[in-house]
Amino acid sequence: MKSVAIVGVGMTPVREHWSRSIGELAEEAGRFALEDAGLATADALYVGNAYGATYNQQTQLGSLIAGDLGLAGIESFSCEAGDASGGVALRTGYLAVAAGAVKTVLVLGVEKATDVVGLARNTARSVSLNADYETVNGATLTAMAGLLMRRYMVEHDVELAQFEGFSINAHRNGARNRKAMYRNLLRPGSFGKAPMLAEPVSLFDSAPDADGAAALVLAPADEAVDLAPKPVLVAGSAVATDTLMLQDRRDPLHFAAVQRSAAQALDQAGLAAGDLDLLELHDGYTILTALALEAMGLSERGSGWAWAQADGEQISLGGELPLCTFGGLKSRGNPSGATGVYQAVEATLQLRGEAGDNQVAGAETALAQNLGGLGSTAVTHVLSAIPE
Amino acid sequence: MKSVAIVGVGMTPVREHWSRSIGELAEEAGRFALEDAGLATADALYVGNAYGATYNQQTQLGSLIAGDLGLAGIESFSCEAGDASGGVALRTGYLAVAAGAVKTVLVLGVEKATDVVGLARNTARSVSLNADYETVNGATLTAMAGLLMRRYMVEHDVELAQFEGFSINAHRNGARNRKAMYRNLLRPGSFGKAPMLAEPVSLFDSAPDADGAAALVLAPADEAVDLAPKPVLVAGSAVATDTLMLQDRRDPLHFAAVQRSAAQALDQAGLAAGDLDLLELHDGYTILTALALEAMGLSERGSGWAWAQADGEQISLGGELPLCTFGGLKSRGNPSGATGVYQAVEATLQLRGEAGDNQVAGAETALAQNLGGLGSTAVTHVLSAIPE
Repeated sequence: MKSVAIVGVGMTPVREHWSRSIGELAEEAGRFALEDAGLATADALYVGNAYGATYNQQTQLGSLIAGDLGLAGIESFSCEAGDASGGVALRTGYLAVAAGAVKTVLVLGVEKATDVVGLARNTARSVSLNADYETVNGATLTAMAGLLMRRYMVEHDVELAQFEGFSINAHRNGARNRKAMYRNLLRPGSFGKAPMLAEPVSLFDSAPDADGAAALVLAPADEAVDLAPKPVLVAGSAVATDTLMLQDRRDPLHFAAVQRSAAQALDQAGLAAGDLDLLELHDGYTILTALALEAMGLSERGSGWAWAQADGEQISLGGELPLCTFGGLKSRGNPSGATGVYQAVEATLQLRGEAGDNQVAGAETALAQNLGGLGSTAVTHVLSAIPE
Repeated sequence: MKSVAIVGVGMTPVREHWSRSIGELAEEAGRFALEDAGLATADALYVGNAYGATYNQQTQLGSLIAGDLGLAGIESFSCEAGDASGGVALRTGYLAVAAGAVKTVLVLGVEKATDVVGLARNTARSVSLNADYETVNGATLTAMAGLLMRRYMVEHDVELAQFEGFSINAHRNGARNRKAMYRNLLRPGSFGKAPMLAEPVSLFDSAPDADGAAALVLAPADEAVDLAPKPVLVAGSAVATDTLMLQDRRDPLHFAAVQRSAAQALDQAGLAAGDLDLLELHDGYTILTALALEAMGLSERGSGWAWAQADGEQISLGGELPLCTFGGLKSRGNPSGATGVYQAVEATLQLRGEAGDNQVAGAETALAQNLGGLGSTAVTHVLSAIPE
């Protein structure tokens, strides 16, 4: 099994891109990543996209985007696992290079939610729930996140405002990131008073749907130094699932897929969670972050929320274990199928020391974790800087 | 790079499965394949599905199906390339085993088109065209196939009835296959008089949308003999793309993606197209078969249609190079995202000598080719029997 490295990255700003198509967004990010790697083409293109069929009446994005990039001919297809689609596209690229089947791979996540009207827009995120048992009864992903959060609050005797640190941290980091969607700061105290979307999940808790594309280039690690001045090693890669529905889990407050995929990826990298220099977690809702921290063993059961306390010392850019360093889904925005690739691109910039105002000093290892549904799919990648 | 073998197969009949859900169909095929391999579980599950979001308002099928199979926990996600979704799921499983990242993989294609009403049903297949330039103007996949066929007929001076041999052959083989959807025979002469769908593509030319699931188990070839009495080697695996839209191709009558993926897969297998014992081609429309035969160099440009002549001697089960031996998409039916897995399962049965009434005597090598759109994605796998 060949070692795999990231040798180029690119992304568009995360916005409501009203005037740009899914192909245009993908093309921009793809070109940036290829240019960053000093390549004109790649041997394969794997696309992460969650809701193209629903939002954009578009499948076969592999062929579409390869064509838009002038690369028609190369191997290409899409990978999907709800909001974890970007993560599983990265996993597929990793497998292809690790197998030696191809040399260079462009991994590209893209989503275009804006300019979609009617039912498609209202229901799109809910197609990642169970259509026959949940969606048909009117459930949405945010509604189910509300149930999960309520259960946590009751079982662990936690108040709503105690989750605020995650959102405050995300916006503090996003405010420094020119590519982030919402760059406003959140004042302490405002989280608990925000308008409710699906109680107790509020507007300042749920990450915004957004448009954007992010891309990275993979190559065999032993050839990466010829391609990039600062290649980053994909030291661990793992995907795990849990039941699609919360109701089928013996313990809905335990994210088994997160535990399993993180343990596998860290084991491959020869690291413990505590060794990491930063975490890009899937903060689609604050409850996801709290439960992910617990499932990875970084905090005790019922105390994941506490990581965001004490003025954010622990999770801020200068803290013990910085979290969502470019703003996370909450502030940078959540272009669903692209999110997992954004996370990996941001972690790569950190490990290259090119994160600018968002730099975590001396970052050498990072974990990027992308979730589908409410922990139904968990994709964990561990990245590490390659010593020069 | 590890050699990869198929150690188990399973499938449901192809039907209008009005009373069965996408999860139920998948579960049945998955269980059959695992049982056939003598396994209780697999390390990973890759799902081929084309239109779940459109037809069934369902994404994250990886998590859903892993859960339905009692395998929640394992790595799983979906792969999509329009009607070539099953083929790219097989490709992903091949990469995972070839890399040594996992040992056993369940590859499962599933589609459920029946019991879908309204716009979703009418437009689903068209989401594999370009939404912004084709679908928005009312084009459907069948309409575009009609344009392509007309262009072929004019350029090569071929009459409609001259394509009939492909459909006659498909139905002759499908009539022997209990899992096929349409088991009627087509009489010579009826093809040219069939009701038109999108002239010149008729009802007896276009393969029917259908429901079904097919699955296979992959394992490293060097361990396959311990798992299966008759493992089949995946001797070649390749994916290639062409532009999504016909209008962007310099020569729409040349299927560049077919040529490229077939050449790569055959080269990996150390075979020439003429060495093959049977072909499972993507006969969604007869024009696709004619153009695929030409692109693979099996016939001259403009004479692919002639392969189906002379009472089908060349392509029948007892012919020189049997085609679509279980009825192909036309007679077995086209459960879109499952089709590529059906093809591989059928080819495997041939190479195991377990094809029953559809057996090609002495078959040792087979090529299975799955197309997305009108040749926008081409996935080619070459399979070969492993000598005992």
